[in-house]
This record gives sequence, C-alpha cells and structure tokens, in this order.
Amino acid sequence: MTLVRIDLVAGRRSPTQVRALADVAHKVLVDTFDIPVSHRYQIVTEHSPEHLLVGDSNLCFDRTEDIVVIHVVAPEVSVHQKQAMFRRMAQKLYDSAGLSQDDLVISVVENTGADWSFGHGVVQFSEKHL
Amino acid sequence: MTLVRIDLVAGRRSPTQVRALADVAHKVLVDTFDIPVSHRYQIVTEHSPEHLLVGDSNLCFDRTEDIVVIHVVAPEVSVHQKQAMFRRMAQKLYDSAGLSQDDLVISVVENTGADWSFGHGVVQFSEKHL
Amino acid sequence: MTLVRIDLVAGRRSPTQVRALADVAHKVLVDTFDIPVSHRYQIVTEHSPEHLLVGDSNLCFDRTEDIVVIHVVAPEVSVHQKQAMFRRMAQKLYDSAGLSQDDLVISVVENTGADWSFGHGVVQFSEKHL
Repeated sequence: MTLVRIDLVAGRRSPTQVRALADVAHKVLVDTFDIPVSHRYQIVTEHSPEHLLVGDSNLCFDRTEDIVVIHVVAPEVSVHQKQAMFRRMAQKLYDSAGLSQDDLVISVVENTGADWSFGHGVVQFSEKHL
Repeated sequence: MTLVRIDLVAGRRSPTQVRALADVAHKVLVDTFDIPVSHRYQIVTEHSPEHLLVGDSNLCFDRTEDIVVIHVVAPEVSVHQKQAMFRRMAQKLYDSAGLSQDDLVISVVENTGADWSFGHGVVQFSEKHL
Repeated sequence: MTLVRIDLVAGRRSPTQVRALADVAHKVLVDTFDIPVSHRYQIVTEHSPEHLLVGDSNLCFDRTEDIVVIHVVAPEVSVHQKQAMFRRMAQKLYDSAGLSQDDLVISVVENTGADWSFGHGVVQFSEKHL
C-alpha cells in the first residue's frame, strides 16, 4: 500500500502524458514494493513553475520545468526496496515517458499497515505490508 | 494536534458540502484522537478526476468520483485510536455527508509533539500529545 | 535535505511576495538544519480561504487569511534544531515578509537519508543527513 503524490509543472505535458507518467510510476511501485496493481493511490498536482522550487543539491543536475517530484508514503519497506524503486523509477520514466533523469526527485516516508484504511473504516492489511 | 489533507474531485460537491465534510472529519478526530475542537488544521484540495487515481486494493469497492482521500499527520496515537478513527470517519461521513463507505481512503503518518509549532515559533505542546 | 510544502491563501500576496516568503523559509532551513543552499525542494500551493481551515489551538492567536502552513519532511533532525527552526522561521518571516507570528503553523515529519533520491534514481546522501 502506498499513497503517492506527484507534483509537476502545469502546461508541460498533455493529460495523456501525465496519465502515462502516473501509470509508469505506479508500475514501478508494483514491481519494487511488491504491491498488487489494484493498490493504486496517486494524487497528481500541477503547479505554476514559480511554485515548484527545486535546487540541484550541488549535484550539477540540469533541472528544467519538466521536473517531477514524487513523494511516497508506504509501510515499512527495506532500504534495498527503496534503492530498487529509485533506480527503476528513473529508468522507466526515462524509457517510457521521456523524463530526463536530471528531472526526478523522490522522497519516501514510512508508516505501518495499521495506518491505512482503504474503505468502510476498516484496517484491511494491518499485518501484511502490501 | 493533527494536520489533515483532504483530497477530492472538483465539481462533485458545493462549497457548503465540502465544508460540511471537513467539519465532520474534524469532529471525528476530536472524538477519537482526543484533541480540542480548536486544534483544527485542515487543507482541502480539489482535483480534476484524472488527477486522483484510486484503485480498490482487490477489495471490490465501488469507487466513484465522490472519492475522498484523507491523510492525517498526528503525534503518537495508539492502534486502538486509529482503528476507532477509521471506523467513526466512515460512519459519520456516511451519516452526515452521504459519503459511500466505498469512497473513503485514509492514511496516517505519525510524528511527535516536538514536531509542531502553532504560532510565534514556539513548540506549544512538546510533552502533551493533544 | 528537506521537502517543504507551503500552503497559503490565494490572492493575498503578489507572486513576488510569495517568492520572497519561500526564499526566507528556505534560508531558515539552511541556517537551522545545516543544509546547503542548493538543497531547496519547495512546493507552494495557494488555496481558496475555504480550503485552509485553521484553528488556534486555544492559544488566542489572531489567525487571518495571511495564514501560512509549512510542512517539512526532513531526515533526522534534533529537537534542538527543530526548536531553532520554528523560532527563526517565525522571526524571519515577520522581519522579511511581514508575516504576523499569529499566522504561522509548522509541522515536521522525519525520514532518513536513505529515503531520498535527488536525480538519476540514486540515493546520494544515505549516510549524511544534509
């Protein structure tokens, strides 16, 4: 289970392209965090360029307005899983959506299975980390 | 103390209905997380339906564009409190705002009392978990 | 490293004023969380006043529509650093952007260095807490 916020600059991609990008991002989480395809919870927000203020962390990235910031809330995932997710996200968004690897920032915050209810006010997966 | 993000689809509810929904959500947190009524910190964001991408976690929920995603940041709360909050949120949003229990997703992330300042740059409740 | 969401009411400040506010907020994080200037990751969102629902936590703050809600995701920072950040944020936003200290709410959520990738799918600072 994951709740994913995808923040990007408005007007840089068609609705179809935004959707394709979100589709790829979800597929990467399915593959690296071992979640079922149906565990998709994504919130996309488009901003004016002035509202997405992104440095380069002294890493000489060539940031552009194509920048994509992905924030993932997920129950306990291993360092290995996170590394795999970061790597695959950059690769797949480049391959499938043409996103420069310079234009991708990802952060993760962990919670637990007991922190999620997917409907009817019930904790469906408290023990399993899906 | 809680910071609550409520994400929903634009154009499905009147401003009055959105406010009523937020009021109910806050009342549920007051009742289940034992916070005073004045500890209300809610950010509502309305999205185009294409930007709120929600699966069913293989639980056969009938998701519609009435979907409500609630994300709560709160200092340490017990599993019992979270279960009570989820249950009551689904019940009260159905009773008071007509929200189908199929259309409610909630996640929680915990921090501590020392992670909050409500004004004047002061940590008002570092010891108490309000 | 920090991911900062700044939520405020639309129409209360010019684009230049919003930018100045974000600049000051970043400078405060640089000074108190010991991050390089280039570690800037801010997402500003402007809301209608009905969508930013903010109480006073029984602290008799005179909240107005100038309200600013800052949410910071950062790897492990000490209680001392957080206190310094809160204090300096309130002071500097007042001094430089004219923000009433009654109109500032800040919350922090921690993660770890391993939870960040700033580009190319690589974890750049897993050991260092920048």
